[in-house]
Amino acid sequence: MCIPTAMADHPTSSTPSGDGATAATPPVQHRGLEGVVALDSELSFIDGQAGVLIYRGYRIEDLAEHASFEEVAHLLWHGRLPTQAELDALNRQLRAERPLPQVIVELLYRIPRDANPMAVLRTAVSALALVDPEADDMSREANVRKAIRLTARIPTIIAAYDRIRRGEEPVAPLQSGSTAYDFLYMLTAEKPGQAAERTFDTCLVLHADHGLNASTFTARVIGSTLSDIYSAVTGAIGALKGPLHGGANIEVMKMLRQIDESGVDPAAFVREKLARKERIMGFGHRVYKTMDPRAAILREMVEDLSEERNARRWYDYSTAIMEVMIREKGIYPNVDFFSAPVYHMLGIAADLFTPIFAMSRITGWTAHLLEQWQDNRLIRPRAAYVGPRDLTATPLAER
Amino acid sequence: MCIPTAMADHPTSSTPSGDGATAATPPVQHRGLEGVVALDSELSFIDGQAGVLIYRGYRIEDLAEHASFEEVAHLLWHGRLPTQAELDALNRQLRAERPLPQVIVELLYRIPRDANPMAVLRTAVSALALVDPEADDMSREANVRKAIRLTARIPTIIAAYDRIRRGEEPVAPLQSGSTAYDFLYMLTAEKPGQAAERTFDTCLVLHADHGLNASTFTARVIGSTLSDIYSAVTGAIGALKGPLHGGANIEVMKMLRQIDESGVDPAAFVREKLARKERIMGFGHRVYKTMDPRAAILREMVEDLSEERNARRWYDYSTAIMEVMIREKGIYPNVDFFSAPVYHMLGIAADLFTPIFAMSRITGWTAHLLEQWQDNRLIRPRAAYVGPRDLTATPLAER
Repeated sequence: MCIPTAMADHPTSSTPSGDGATAATPPVQHRGLEGVVALDSELSFIDGQAGVLIYRGYRIEDLAEHASFEEVAHLLWHGRLPTQAELDALNRQLRAERPLPQVIVELLYRIPRDANPMAVLRTAVSALALVDPEADDMSREANVRKAIRLTARIPTIIAAYDRIRRGEEPVAPLQSGSTAYDFLYMLTAEKPGQAAERTFDTCLVLHADHGLNASTFTARVIGSTLSDIYSAVTGAIGALKGPLHGGANIEVMKMLRQIDESGVDPAAFVREKLARKERIMGFGHRVYKTMDPRAAILREMVEDLSEERNARRWYDYSTAIMEVMIREKGIYPNVDFFSAPVYHMLGIAADLFTPIFAMSRITGWTAHLLEQWQDNRLIRPRAAYVGPRDLTATPLAER
Repeated sequence: MCIPTAMADHPTSSTPSGDGATAATPPVQHRGLEGVVALDSELSFIDGQAGVLIYRGYRIEDLAEHASFEEVAHLLWHGRLPTQAELDALNRQLRAERPLPQVIVELLYRIPRDANPMAVLRTAVSALALVDPEADDMSREANVRKAIRLTARIPTIIAAYDRIRRGEEPVAPLQSGSTAYDFLYMLTAEKPGQAAERTFDTCLVLHADHGLNASTFTARVIGSTLSDIYSAVTGAIGALKGPLHGGANIEVMKMLRQIDESGVDPAAFVREKLARKERIMGFGHRVYKTMDPRAAILREMVEDLSEERNARRWYDYSTAIMEVMIREKGIYPNVDFFSAPVYHMLGIAADLFTPIFAMSRITGWTAHLLEQWQDNRLIRPRAAYVGPRDLTATPLAER
């Protein structure tokens, strides 16, 4: 095991002014850690002012147009786009790893059919460690193999549980096409068309990494104790599940369906919600002050898909909502807003939207973990203690 | 669901200088977040200079002497020590919740017998959510019930899996005594003596909370997305598993056994390790600059137990190591150092030491989550991007 020299739990100077405050300087207060730089990263760059997102030097628009999800995975893990031979090798490994160990399939059958799919994914990913002989091998080589294994198996878990809960048999992966192709096949038992595969592949590219978002940060905090990759990814899935993070795309779809079913004017619907001080999900971001570049790409995908599928209304609803939000609140759509109608038009159940996010973000989480372990330092901030200090326990009988 | 007004993913001003740097001030760099205050807490106070640990106003020495683990759990969750009636009610709830749902017991039987017990605990706790109808209920009342349920069930999971892997039937909880009593009974199928119960209960008191340690911080980061308590605790277990965190007590026991088996002089053993620049586990802490008050209490327990059990050598080895470390390195033992020989003398397998840590810390994790959700704010720091910015994707065939 790699034990770094700069061990983080060595003693440091401290004073009695908090949860281990340093003597030299007063503690720096940053609620929610907003604006605090916790670490250096070569993985992704966000210019929230200009609406720019870069993965390892490449603009997201460039990658969405010219690279597949598997090429992006290679880029994130290894720092450069793969050659044809490297891509072929990665695809062979991913395809070989897609089938689930039998014990995981049995576990999925035993889970109640109304369980939260993110809780199912979290449990199944945690269980994968129990049947992986190299689960606790902390060498970089083993961790890259496990990153590939997780990227291969998460789609299979999502599709298998979805079929089981619908009373259908899971479909074994074809182990021939791309991640996008094989996932859509496992979900529907039908080979997807080229347009659907391409659209879904681009969605996976767009969601692969995004700075130190809450789930990626979770993965790095767990990884910084030198715990294993399964522990870190299991924790990240738990964070992504939250409605203030990946869970938002489910709420967007609920709103769009509500508009569709009630026949209400979408602009009026949003204005009424705003008047009642209700939150509109899928808008605003701690980082972007303008249009999220991923939202711009997804919006074009909504337009194309809604034309193709003769479902123009999803484009109209979402555009109308966006226009009100920008004009009246100055708040722009984020990645969750337009991914919801895209997935819906691809025939995917709303409660799978967040698991699908995980299916892509697994590449970013694992790339961040590989980076964390290259030069590890325990991530451990402090709390300011604001409670009493000098109480004395009264015997139980006298309380 | 509670959606706080100060939503953390609203847009903020930013410049192109990092992962969303603010325009007004340059980003504050804190690698590992050392010295950064992330939040206020009323739960525990650490004075690393004076060697003081306080839970909600009470010194740890006072609680170790005058309060049971269940009283401390009530203190952490509700902010004050319970009355007799409140303690009776809590004990009734804990006892009622101790048995595991059948599907969890079946899961434990299907896990390979050589699995890492922390990976088993992480998976089983994640799976508990799948059979808890109020898993996603974010009301405080439901979260308190789930905190009690988790505190009741984690000991049962640990004991059941340990028996299964040893080829024995799990022992159902007695559902009468304390957490410490019922756990030792489930582990050994024998009713523990009063001294063993009392010693183990005190260990649980000592490990219940400790500021924003990595696992507690993990729980709060996950909780800050408004994800559920099972997601947050599952992530915390994954963080505690790391050798830079809870995993350290296992390494301490390895070292003590190595000394015992080889017959080497413990002081010479440590000096040789130091000369080879090897790390001595169980020493040093980011917060304490002097003796960790928990280590001082545990050291007395090691002395008493080693007298009682005619196993004085464990006290001698650990004292000799401590003296070398303090004299030659100025580094003090932490909580992991003396808990290892205590658990060993209680007849507990070394790889259960970290799961036992979780069995106690679950009260701190859940108390921190209840506190987080009282006034939630997404915990989301930033990375400084240090990679390239202006690459262009070359077509695959030309790479």
